[in-house]
Amino acid sequence: MSFNPDVFGSELRKRKEYIDNCLEKYLGGPPANPPVIHQAMYYAVMNGGKRLRPILVLEGTAIAGGRAERVLPTACAIEMIHSYSLVHDDLPAMDDDDFRRGKPTCHRVFGEANAILAGDALLTAAFELMADNAEIDGVELRDVIRVIREVAQAVGSKGMIGGQVMDLAGEEPGKPLDLSVMHGLKTGELFKASLRVGAILSQLSNDGLEALTQFACHFGLAFQITDDILDVCGDQSLIGKPVGSDAKNVRTTYTSLYGLEGAKTKAQQSVEACLDSLSIFAAEANFLRDLARFTLCRTS
Amino acid sequence: MSFNPDVFGSELRKRKEYIDNCLEKYLGGPPANPPVIHQAMYYAVMNGGKRLRPILVLEGTAIAGGRAERVLPTACAIEMIHSYSLVHDDLPAMDDDDFRRGKPTCHRVFGEANAILAGDALLTAAFELMADNAEIDGVELRDVIRVIREVAQAVGSKGMIGGQVMDLAGEEPGKPLDLSVMHGLKTGELFKASLRVGAILSQLSNDGLEALTQFACHFGLAFQITDDILDVCGDQSLIGKPVGSDAKNVRTTYTSLYGLEGAKTKAQQSVEACLDSLSIFAAEANFLRDLARFTLCRTS
Repeated sequence: MSFNPDVFGSELRKRKEYIDNCLEKYLGGPPANPPVIHQAMYYAVMNGGKRLRPILVLEGTAIAGGRAERVLPTACAIEMIHSYSLVHDDLPAMDDDDFRRGKPTCHRVFGEANAILAGDALLTAAFELMADNAEIDGVELRDVIRVIREVAQAVGSKGMIGGQVMDLAGEEPGKPLDLSVMHGLKTGELFKASLRVGAILSQLSNDGLEALTQFACHFGLAFQITDDILDVCGDQSLIGKPVGSDAKNVRTTYTSLYGLEGAKTKAQQSVEACLDSLSIFAAEANFLRDLARFTLCRTS
Repeated sequence: MSFNPDVFGSELRKRKEYIDNCLEKYLGGPPANPPVIHQAMYYAVMNGGKRLRPILVLEGTAIAGGRAERVLPTACAIEMIHSYSLVHDDLPAMDDDDFRRGKPTCHRVFGEANAILAGDALLTAAFELMADNAEIDGVELRDVIRVIREVAQAVGSKGMIGGQVMDLAGEEPGKPLDLSVMHGLKTGELFKASLRVGAILSQLSNDGLEALTQFACHFGLAFQITDDILDVCGDQSLIGKPVGSDAKNVRTTYTSLYGLEGAKTKAQQSVEACLDSLSIFAAEANFLRDLARFTLCRTS
C-alpha cells in the first residue's frame, strides 16, 4: 500500500471543511445576547484549526460502521473543548501569547475577562452539545452518559488540565519534567477520548476500543514530537508562530532532549507503534494508518 | 403558621453540614497528581459557603418524594459550579477581589494560572459528577441527560456567564444596566436549575416543576436584593467583606436604585411572590416557604 501525502492531505482538508461547516452551524449567525461573549466564542473556534480531534471522533464512528451524522454534536463539542483550552493557555497568566495561528489571541481582541469567560462558555456549551447527541436516532442514552464521563475525565484535573499545570510548573529543582507524562495528559488524553467516544456512540466492540486507545496514545506522542520538530525547522508562515519560540522560551521539548535526529527517530517509532495497534482492523482503519504516516510529513 | 428564624437557621446549618460532608468525600483526602490543582479545587469549594444551591437540589427531590441520596452527586456538582464561578469572578481580570468570605481568594493563595485552571477543573468535574448520578438506583438515564442540558444552559453564555459579562460591562452610555436581567442570568438561572434538577431526577409532575421554576425566579430576586441590603447595613464579620464595598466600587445595586427602604419593600414583595408560587403544594413545600421568609432576616 503506497502512501501519497498530497492525496491524503486533500482528504484531510475535505474533512476539515465538513467540520468547519458544522461548527459554523452551531456558533455562527447573528450573535445572541450579550453579543461580545458569543463573538469571542466564535472567534476562538473559527480560527483555522486543523479539526484533528473531531476528525478522530468521526473516524471512530466510521470504523464501527456508523455514519458521521450520528456523532456530529459530540465531534463539534470536542473541538470546542480544544478551543477553550487554547484560549485559556494563551492568557497572560499562563503562556501570555499574543498570536495563535497567525492571528491575535482571543484576549488580545476581546480583553482578558471576556476571553476567560468565552473559554468557560465553550467548555459549558460542549457538555450541552454532548447531551444533545442523545436526540439522534439510534444513539443509546447510556453511551451518551459514558461519553460525557470519558470526556470529562480526559480534560479534567487528572487529564488535560493536569497536563497544563505540569507544563506551567516546568522543571523544578531535583524534579525533571517528564515530557511524555505531561504531553500524555495535556494532549494525549483528549486525542484518546476523541477516537473512543466516536466508537462508543457507534458501539464498537471492546477489543476494537482497546486497539483505538493504543493507537491514540502512540498517535498523540507522534503528533507532539513532530510539533516540537516543526518548532525547530518549520515554516513560520505555515505554523503560524515564530520558529524557535520553544527554545526562546526555554521549554523542554523532544528536540531539546533528544536532538533533531533523535526526535525524528522517536516520531518514526511512534508511527510504527500506531500501525501495530491497528492490526486487528482491515481496510476500515486505512484512514487512521495514513493519518499516522502523515504526521511525519506534516508542515503545520 | 409561625416562622421562627432561629429554628429555621439551625435546620439550614444541619443541611449545610450534610452537604459539606458530601463535598469533603468528593474533594478531600490526599490530593491526586498534580497536587496543586487538587488543593486549589478543594480550597475553592471548602471555604464556608452557605450551600444554598445544593440544598435547593435536595429540596426539589424531597418535594417530589425522593430521598437525598438519589441526587447527591448532582447537588455537589452544582456547588462545584457555583464555586468555579466565584473563583473566576474574583480574578484580577474580573472583580480583582483579594478576599472571599474573609479568606484570601483562590488566586491569592495558588496564583492566577492555577486559579483559572482550578475553576476549569471544577466545572469539568461537575459534569462528570452529574453523569455519575446515572449510577444511582431508580434514576432514569434520560433524566440525567436532561439535567446535564438544563445545567449547561443555566450556567452557559446565555445564562450565568452571560450575566457576568453584563455585570462586568456595567453601565454603558445610553444603555443603563437592567439589574433584574443581569442578576436573573448571573444568579437566578442557577437557583432555578438547582431546584428543577432535583425535582426532575425524582420525576416531579410538569405542574410541580413549573411552580418550582416560578418560586426560584422570585427567590433569586429576593436573595439578590437582600444581598445588596446587607452590603449597606450588614455586619462585616458575618458577610466576610467590607460593608459598603458596592458603593465604593460604584456598582448599581437595588439599594442605589430604590434606596434602602424601597429595596426592603421590593424584597418583601418578592418573598410574597415566592409563597404564591408554591400554592399548589401542601406541607411538603414548607421548607421552601421558610427559606423564602428567611431571606428577609438573613445576616450573611
